[in-house]
Amino acid sequence: MILVADSTAAFVSNAQHKLEGHLRHIVTLLEKHRLIETMVDRDRDSPRHDLIESLVHRQHLVELQLKLRSLHPADIAYILEALPLDDRLLVWQQTQNDRGGEVLLEVSDVVRGSLIEELERSELVGVLGQLDPDDLTELTEAIPEDMLAEVLQTLPTRDRNWLQTTLAYSDDQVGHLMSQDVLTVRESQRIEQVLLLLRGRDDLPPNTDSLCVVDARHQCKGVLPLRALLLNDPSQQIAEFMLSDPVMFNVHDSAHDAARAFERYDLVSAPVVNERSKLVGRLTVDAVMDFIREESEEDALNMAGLQGDEDLFAPIWDSARNRWLWLAVNLCTAFVASRAIGLFEEAISQIVALATLMPIVAGIGGNSGNQTTALVVRGLALGEITPENTWYLVFKELGVGLLNGMVWGVTVGSFACLLYLNLPLGCVMAAAMLLNLVLAALVGVIIPLTLHKFGRDPAMGSSVLLTFITDGMGFFIFLGLATVFLL
Amino acid sequence: MILVADSTAAFVSNAQHKLEGHLRHIVTLLEKHRLIETMVDRDRDSPRHDLIESLVHRQHLVELQLKLRSLHPADIAYILEALPLDDRLLVWQQTQNDRGGEVLLEVSDVVRGSLIEELERSELVGVLGQLDPDDLTELTEAIPEDMLAEVLQTLPTRDRNWLQTTLAYSDDQVGHLMSQDVLTVRESQRIEQVLLLLRGRDDLPPNTDSLCVVDARHQCKGVLPLRALLLNDPSQQIAEFMLSDPVMFNVHDSAHDAARAFERYDLVSAPVVNERSKLVGRLTVDAVMDFIREESEEDALNMAGLQGDEDLFAPIWDSARNRWLWLAVNLCTAFVASRAIGLFEEAISQIVALATLMPIVAGIGGNSGNQTTALVVRGLALGEITPENTWYLVFKELGVGLLNGMVWGVTVGSFACLLYLNLPLGCVMAAAMLLNLVLAALVGVIIPLTLHKFGRDPAMGSSVLLTFITDGMGFFIFLGLATVFLL
Repeated sequence: MILVADSTAAFVSNAQHKLEGHLRHIVTLLEKHRLIETMVDRDRDSPRHDLIESLVHRQHLVELQLKLRSLHPADIAYILEALPLDDRLLVWQQTQNDRGGEVLLEVSDVVRGSLIEELERSELVGVLGQLDPDDLTELTEAIPEDMLAEVLQTLPTRDRNWLQTTLAYSDDQVGHLMSQDVLTVRESQRIEQVLLLLRGRDDLPPNTDSLCVVDARHQCKGVLPLRALLLNDPSQQIAEFMLSDPVMFNVHDSAHDAARAFERYDLVSAPVVNERSKLVGRLTVDAVMDFIREESEEDALNMAGLQGDEDLFAPIWDSARNRWLWLAVNLCTAFVASRAIGLFEEAISQIVALATLMPIVAGIGGNSGNQTTALVVRGLALGEITPENTWYLVFKELGVGLLNGMVWGVTVGSFACLLYLNLPLGCVMAAAMLLNLVLAALVGVIIPLTLHKFGRDPAMGSSVLLTFITDGMGFFIFLGLATVFLL
Repeated sequence: MILVADSTAAFVSNAQHKLEGHLRHIVTLLEKHRLIETMVDRDRDSPRHDLIESLVHRQHLVELQLKLRSLHPADIAYILEALPLDDRLLVWQQTQNDRGGEVLLEVSDVVRGSLIEELERSELVGVLGQLDPDDLTELTEAIPEDMLAEVLQTLPTRDRNWLQTTLAYSDDQVGHLMSQDVLTVRESQRIEQVLLLLRGRDDLPPNTDSLCVVDARHQCKGVLPLRALLLNDPSQQIAEFMLSDPVMFNVHDSAHDAARAFERYDLVSAPVVNERSKLVGRLTVDAVMDFIREESEEDALNMAGLQGDEDLFAPIWDSARNRWLWLAVNLCTAFVASRAIGLFEEAISQIVALATLMPIVAGIGGNSGNQTTALVVRGLALGEITPENTWYLVFKELGVGLLNGMVWGVTVGSFACLLYLNLPLGCVMAAAMLLNLVLAALVGVIIPLTLHKFGRDPAMGSSVLLTFITDGMGFFIFLGLATVFLL
């Protein structure tokens, strides 16, 4: 298909390009602002300095404010995240009074922290006052407790109770993610009654694709898709179109499982009930998508050895601290693994080639084991690994390890043999590769399964533990075999 | 909050528990089936063998079929993925005629392959015939080309054309993910006219939260939220409630960018237009969620050095091959990096401690560099890294590397000094750590940026390249410094 350059092409909307355009525009405004500020500063002794400065200042800030006012809060959030600290705070000052709350809601956790730090106590209370209680739940982690209490006092009783209810759940439970507004109807109502009821409202809660049908005890009996109201004769009864076995969630359900259910059954919203089957809220696809994204980003960063999310433009000191825990853990494991080499320094001093070849044995063991671990971690996340199929999996991975060990052991052994013209050395290398790859396969399955069994997140730490074992044992096996057979 | 154990608690729906219950039920059925099959087999010489076998066989298969018929296709897909190969194929045989198409749609790519392989050509054509063209687009990669042509012949002209259109886009473009059914209205219509039109339909396309407003040239002028039809007086004109600047996508837009826009603006569906602004389809949140999940899983597996997705229960041979490419690449880089050690075998033979300490220098360099790379990859995926802030980022990471280098260099150097009671050795170790961590920070930023600049996916290969450099240079720097200052 050929892209036709045509006069209307400019009208075609591309959300990402638009967004990058906004960012560039704001960066230009900021550059102009700083440039003129410097020029005015240089002219500091002029009597009109103060006047000029305030005029120029105001002109650019007004332009910036106008631009920001035209943007969606999520776009402002994107721009704040892409700006270095100084610029970010300047933009934030221009937007906080207006739509600070919505913007706070959209930025990532770490950038949120840097923005909240900038606010005076009274400003923060004002900004948070712009939000409804569902949104406040998302922000509470970032807010100091005493300030949260102050904000709670300003809320109507109903909202305050709701906020306290959702905060009672941990942030990976459905109860934490649910929203308050659910439209309910009774089974006995007719479509026209519901239509009349709806017309009395200003708006529907976001992502409403169905109404919840409840009985007198407020237990959820089913859901009525909105489409049923549009497609059918208004005189008919709701009971006829109600889905009586909908997917619903319990407040205590894991958010991870709920997210998988949303994907599986293509849901837009679902009722949330408490332990007595009473309807308490609603889970919507936008909250679920945010959860999925956060979860996968967190996993990716954890796997790379970062404690948590990190602001790309955080101060050096903050960044360094975020990385210390895992670097320290890695350092300890590397130190312990290297003691395996220390045991065989005598052997190395006699055959120096061992020192050159040993990192290869250890390294490939780590790579191969990490492949296994990644698959097992994924299988655990999808719930595909059950007690019944665990043994099958272990044997399969051992088989793969054995096969890979033979293939790569012979390859590497031949290289070593040719490089040093030493057949026994090649054989020791091949045997060490084989043993280390089989060990890596076994450990690669066992570590994530064990972490999972003890309720830990297998995505976190599996890789470090695995590399520790494949390194240490790789050195030990290779140098040990060499000591036995080559000295 | 205390969990109240109450008589109605059993009614509370928990999607994931239900699903695992289904899986256990099916595994039990399969076990019974196999057990009785073995018993009957043992009794092979009995004259009634054939009769018994067919009776028993039928009884269990009927039970299995009944169970499967009660399940959502996505649940069957989950069960197929969690079963070892033999069992999987047995279950698949019981479901394929009925709802094979829907199940194929829901399983992961790799499991799909194993199911399709089992089907005769005519069976496959039958199964695919159960699907509408939007769904077929998703499956086409798994189907041999000549068979796809055969299926195409059985489709009505309109569906065939649609399928050919969507297949013209690559699978990371919006055009590939869009669906065909869009309900359109004209600006001049009144709400009651639209309601009448809708009542004439059996159903709405899935995830319809808005109708598309088009002009005479079928260009998209805006969207009309369904809620507007429900909340307002039927005599009013559509134009009043139309959103005239909705988020819409171009067929050529990247699916990744579109997915981010769905998250940012909390969309359920959005119009898709071609290069002439003509409305051609609709992108819905279910397709976007699947895309996000696949993308993040693929990234996680790629980072662990797997070429692509892999069936947890694939045959050993298939699994091994899926892992060879990256193992081979890692082997080559490990071999080359180890040559840096080869250069200094003379130094190692004089100070064997060098061999013990060198993996620590190399390893921590790799860990630290991978932290940087993970953040840069994430920043690139979010579009947060711009030409304007790249330098800022480089200097910041160099700063973090320098700080970490000093902290961990001194720590490790002191240990080495104490362990071998050798101050110069400790100093060389500290200096090597510092240099390697700064190098790792620099390379950790440059590699993903360079891959991105050349249009490659920075999540793939960054880590291997980085580890290659931090290993090789780590060995070189440490042993080189040792040669200069210690010999």
